[in-house]
Amino acid sequence: MSISLAEGIRDIPDHPSAGIMFRDITPLLADPEMFEEVITQFVAGLEGEVDLVTGIEARGFILAAPVALALGVGFVPIRKAGKLPYETESKSYQLEYGEATIEVHKDAVKAGQRVLLVDDVLATGGTARAGRELVEGLGGKVIGARFLIELEALEGRKALGDLPVTSLVTY
Amino acid sequence: MSISLAEGIRDIPDHPSAGIMFRDITPLLADPEMFEEVITQFVAGLEGEVDLVTGIEARGFILAAPVALALGVGFVPIRKAGKLPYETESKSYQLEYGEATIEVHKDAVKAGQRVLLVDDVLATGGTARAGRELVEGLGGKVIGARFLIELEALEGRKALGDLPVTSLVTY
Repeated sequence: MSISLAEGIRDIPDHPSAGIMFRDITPLLADPEMFEEVITQFVAGLEGEVDLVTGIEARGFILAAPVALALGVGFVPIRKAGKLPYETESKSYQLEYGEATIEVHKDAVKAGQRVLLVDDVLATGGTARAGRELVEGLGGKVIGARFLIELEALEGRKALGDLPVTSLVTY
Repeated sequence: MSISLAEGIRDIPDHPSAGIMFRDITPLLADPEMFEEVITQFVAGLEGEVDLVTGIEARGFILAAPVALALGVGFVPIRKAGKLPYETESKSYQLEYGEATIEVHKDAVKAGQRVLLVDDVLATGGTARAGRELVEGLGGKVIGARFLIELEALEGRKALGDLPVTSLVTY
């Protein structure tokens, strides 16, 4: 019997600000069958195709770390500016209001490594695009991206160009 | 052959401030054998003994989510103030300078549920103690805590009272 992952996502109106419908994944994470199903769907077809899995702070960590373990490859955190302790590369990108910066350790990706990008939500794609640029700036090759949720109206796929993108629940 | 987890931890002097030796776990996370070994050691003896696994933002998520999946139980994020979208309980605690606040969703733990607390580092124990209080405030029973690293000089175990604590690498 198939699992409806959408049933694990709770709508929170007006969060974090008026007019925004926030998609809360915590009910899904609290359900081990649903959580396991997400990881199973994320790794499908990727065995032997990936050298590293990157997750974007903070919710991306929750999904990306199990994906790395399931594929038997290393996990690389992409973090908000100032959080990683070793030498980093940074990338800034536009938000609706203002700017954000994410970072990766310089030694986290080696030239030619095939990298899967994982995050919880694909919205405008700005964060994922910056993550891709960070990885590729270190010589890695981002071979795909996996998102639990895609907010289609925000057209995040366009921001990711030719990158193969899989999302499991769309709004 | 046994794996030396300590070899996956990199010392970063004077981070985040002068005189502090930061223990960087990213080399360990990049090594799938080491990362898998951490999860294996964390779950040892806990099959059937735990109803939920809580991880503390952000590095705790990386370790706690795979532990929840390995045990086949739900994952509950404990986050910094203002990050969780639904109704929350909060707990503030003292840092060396100032104060921090962490939160959990009010519906994340039900009365009587057995909860395992997971984080990367046990330092003074302030964060873990606050996490335990949050869970117990919701009626849950924290049955143990797992840390990758323990900084023994900071006596975090004392802050956790009678809670069974396991750490894998000590300094």
